[in-house]
Amino acid sequence: MQSLVELYDIETTTPSLGDNTADLDRLKKALSHSLQGRKPVVPFGRIAPVARAFRNSGFKGCAVVIHYPEGPRLVDFWGQAPEMLLGLALDLGTTHLEASLMDLLSGKVLERGTVENGQLEFGSDILTRIHFAATKSDGRTGLDLLHDRIITSIYSLANALTKRVRMEPNQIMALCVSGNTAMAHFFLKQDPYYLCREPYIPVVNGPDPFSASDLGLDLHPEAVIMVMPSIGSYFGGDLISGILSSGLDQQEETGMLIDVGTNAEVVVGNRDWLIACAGAAGPALEGGVARMGMRAQEGAIEHCTIDPENGEISYQTIGDKPPRGICGSGVIDLVAGLYLARIIDIRGKFRPRQPQAEGHLIEHGEGLAYVVVPAEESGVGESILLSQVDIDALMRSKAAMYSILTTITNQVGVSFQDLQKIYVAGAFGKHIAPRQAIVLGMLPDLPLEVYNPLGNSSLAGAELMLNDVSVRERCRDVVAKVTYVELNVNQEFMIRFSGSRFIPHTDHTLFPSVPFYKESG
Amino acid sequence: MQSLVELYDIETTTPSLGDNTADLDRLKKALSHSLQGRKPVVPFGRIAPVARAFRNSGFKGCAVVIHYPEGPRLVDFWGQAPEMLLGLALDLGTTHLEASLMDLLSGKVLERGTVENGQLEFGSDILTRIHFAATKSDGRTGLDLLHDRIITSIYSLANALTKRVRMEPNQIMALCVSGNTAMAHFFLKQDPYYLCREPYIPVVNGPDPFSASDLGLDLHPEAVIMVMPSIGSYFGGDLISGILSSGLDQQEETGMLIDVGTNAEVVVGNRDWLIACAGAAGPALEGGVARMGMRAQEGAIEHCTIDPENGEISYQTIGDKPPRGICGSGVIDLVAGLYLARIIDIRGKFRPRQPQAEGHLIEHGEGLAYVVVPAEESGVGESILLSQVDIDALMRSKAAMYSILTTITNQVGVSFQDLQKIYVAGAFGKHIAPRQAIVLGMLPDLPLEVYNPLGNSSLAGAELMLNDVSVRERCRDVVAKVTYVELNVNQEFMIRFSGSRFIPHTDHTLFPSVPFYKESG
Repeated sequence: MQSLVELYDIETTTPSLGDNTADLDRLKKALSHSLQGRKPVVPFGRIAPVARAFRNSGFKGCAVVIHYPEGPRLVDFWGQAPEMLLGLALDLGTTHLEASLMDLLSGKVLERGTVENGQLEFGSDILTRIHFAATKSDGRTGLDLLHDRIITSIYSLANALTKRVRMEPNQIMALCVSGNTAMAHFFLKQDPYYLCREPYIPVVNGPDPFSASDLGLDLHPEAVIMVMPSIGSYFGGDLISGILSSGLDQQEETGMLIDVGTNAEVVVGNRDWLIACAGAAGPALEGGVARMGMRAQEGAIEHCTIDPENGEISYQTIGDKPPRGICGSGVIDLVAGLYLARIIDIRGKFRPRQPQAEGHLIEHGEGLAYVVVPAEESGVGESILLSQVDIDALMRSKAAMYSILTTITNQVGVSFQDLQKIYVAGAFGKHIAPRQAIVLGMLPDLPLEVYNPLGNSSLAGAELMLNDVSVRERCRDVVAKVTYVELNVNQEFMIRFSGSRFIPHTDHTLFPSVPFYKESG
Repeated sequence: MQSLVELYDIETTTPSLGDNTADLDRLKKALSHSLQGRKPVVPFGRIAPVARAFRNSGFKGCAVVIHYPEGPRLVDFWGQAPEMLLGLALDLGTTHLEASLMDLLSGKVLERGTVENGQLEFGSDILTRIHFAATKSDGRTGLDLLHDRIITSIYSLANALTKRVRMEPNQIMALCVSGNTAMAHFFLKQDPYYLCREPYIPVVNGPDPFSASDLGLDLHPEAVIMVMPSIGSYFGGDLISGILSSGLDQQEETGMLIDVGTNAEVVVGNRDWLIACAGAAGPALEGGVARMGMRAQEGAIEHCTIDPENGEISYQTIGDKPPRGICGSGVIDLVAGLYLARIIDIRGKFRPRQPQAEGHLIEHGEGLAYVVVPAEESGVGESILLSQVDIDALMRSKAAMYSILTTITNQVGVSFQDLQKIYVAGAFGKHIAPRQAIVLGMLPDLPLEVYNPLGNSSLAGAELMLNDVSVRERCRDVVAKVTYVELNVNQEFMIRFSGSRFIPHTDHTLFPSVPFYKESG
């Protein structure tokens, strides 16, 4: 396994009248031996510092080589081999950036950390930012600002993480970035205008590696920057990372990957073929729909149960803090609980006469709402509610999700039962209880062990790429192999969507493990 | 023959929902077909402009590709194929820069021009500039200033030449530079400190190609810059150019290349082997020794003859202007004429009693001087003289030259008679009359047709490199093949030098065609 950046011990003879080749050529020749004859290229700006360091350390030491696809690049020379060789893996999320500081010598993660995406000020969702990118003020475009913010956020994260190991950002020699296509455009300062306009064309899917100085990011000036390739506007590098980290592209048996972020993105396949699609199913599941919805962070109701006998609710918050809202997994648990206690019907509508609802339903705005946490227990000074509007939104999300899953498997003639593994990526995968999602008819009714949370697979993919140059080739294979199905223009999807707007489904035989209650309202 | 820069016609299908790959990836894929599957790399700074131009011209047009050693680089996209594709070949001379503006589509020279090297202000010779490079003032090093001057000189030359074809410097897509090792260091802004200190080590001999924006030179930002590799401090890229343009490295028969600039540089060899050396023989031959010496420019006495019977002198100046001084070839003619008229003896000393000297010898400073042109005929208001001191200097130069030639041929066991061709590069080669140099014992006594003037072979080599990427490989072969002999530490050279300090030589049998006069003073 060859890391993206490697060190090579160099020891050469000292120049003399009989051996008077130039400093840099002497170093390159010696290094070429270590590289099995491949000739390293030295970027113009590195000629002077590398040659000087080589001479000053007595024509021996440690050459720093970055493996570009087109060949090795010699970027620095150190008199002494360092204890660690820093690389940064980065998940470029819409709301948060998460990074792993890695030691490329051992391949181990040294530190992990998160910062808020500095672009939030210009819009919490991608679409708002895409529109903002086209604006201009004081001679700067919105894109300039969005780009600057992201660079600043990355630097602050790099700074915080390197500090923890008593090093500096300029000692980072490589950065691998994974994110959705729009975030990648902001990062690369590329115009996102056509991303959200039919036929949804990015400027670039697979940018060639470049250097930190190209980007104006204060890492080592020749730190290599690699961006995980995307496949289209709605299929970003974060999902390629998911495929890499799940290993879907290397398995003999067919599996599925579900990544729920702003969109729900789904990949089905194995080492021979991969099919993918994306659809708008996400907001409800990321805390974006429920009025009291929030991201999976401290004080969020992560899980809850409703006693089907007496309607009593019990919940659990992240960090055991007083509840401040409900995150995606909490909403799913809650609505599943409401259904099993028959407080809502198969259409997701409140049944106010149901005894278990007693004391929990109040009039709120245009309709009823369920009191999850009374004001006196809440961490925000008011009751935490789930309104009919919230439930309706979740019903649409869960219907979209299940329709996506059935449409894509149907597309390739695979039944859910054929799937050996279903990988669930992201915060959604980490917190969700698949059982409750099955009750709602959001996920197929399969044995729970089929479901595997992946964690932050976008970050994991970036880590893989840092540690192993061959992952680059794997990426290329994946990109070439994936067939992308555009659901926005898919008739079948629309038909399936209608059938999925009941709990668990119009066709309840699809969910044998879920109780089916015919009566409504 | 593949030019360094090439255009490829591209026509792709328009993006659609069914074919929604990114703009740049679409272009790269189409281009890769034209490149027989090789994948072009797009530099970071070119992603946006190239993708935009591709889209704006309806996804068809003309891709501009530069062939780097590590692979093709896509640097621009034009809606319409241009009539010309500009490249600049440049000879980076110590006193002058000479350039050819070329059309890389036809391989033809469009324009040629010369400017004075803007570094002259900081020293007319290389050694002075090397010392100046180490100075500092106002926070800038001498090297910074020397570098800036050369960049300014190049830009002004590029500007003048492009203007003549109604184009702009930023339309130049490639620059190939050939010069001595010190000039290459100034151009690359590399510290020349060790060039002139034993064991005479350059920072870099063979820099990798880089882009104009790396250098801050206002050509096309991604114009490729290639510097002809050097072999050592005293064996520069200009001489590699000489080898390339003479074809010495490709010929079956053994030949010799003589390049007289600040140093005399000599290469002997054929397609199987090359041996080279350099020595300080030059100044007298470049107008640097004689008090009235000057470069081969207007008003310089280029040729002269002395009637051996009556001592009458006749001369010819460049541009037929009133004489202002004597250039290298003039000095050689003059001293050879003085010898044949027996005005000087075999040691090069004046013979004042010789009748042919009458009316030409005057007392001057510490000794005698020969009046070449009386004040009334001269273009500088005073007589043009050749003093004993001047002749002594020429005697050292000619001795050095002949010693270099004998030492190097002896090194490889080749006699002068084995040489099928002797190429004489530069202004020296262009103006010199080999016959007079033979009389002096400077060049071996061979039939005159053996001698071939090469012209500005430094420039010619740069032109070759622009027109044909395979020349790069030829360069590498030459660099690998050349054995460099350091004469500064060569015992044999010193012995030969002593024997060569007579006209034509101590061993006059070496010069059967030259009259030998025993008597002295």
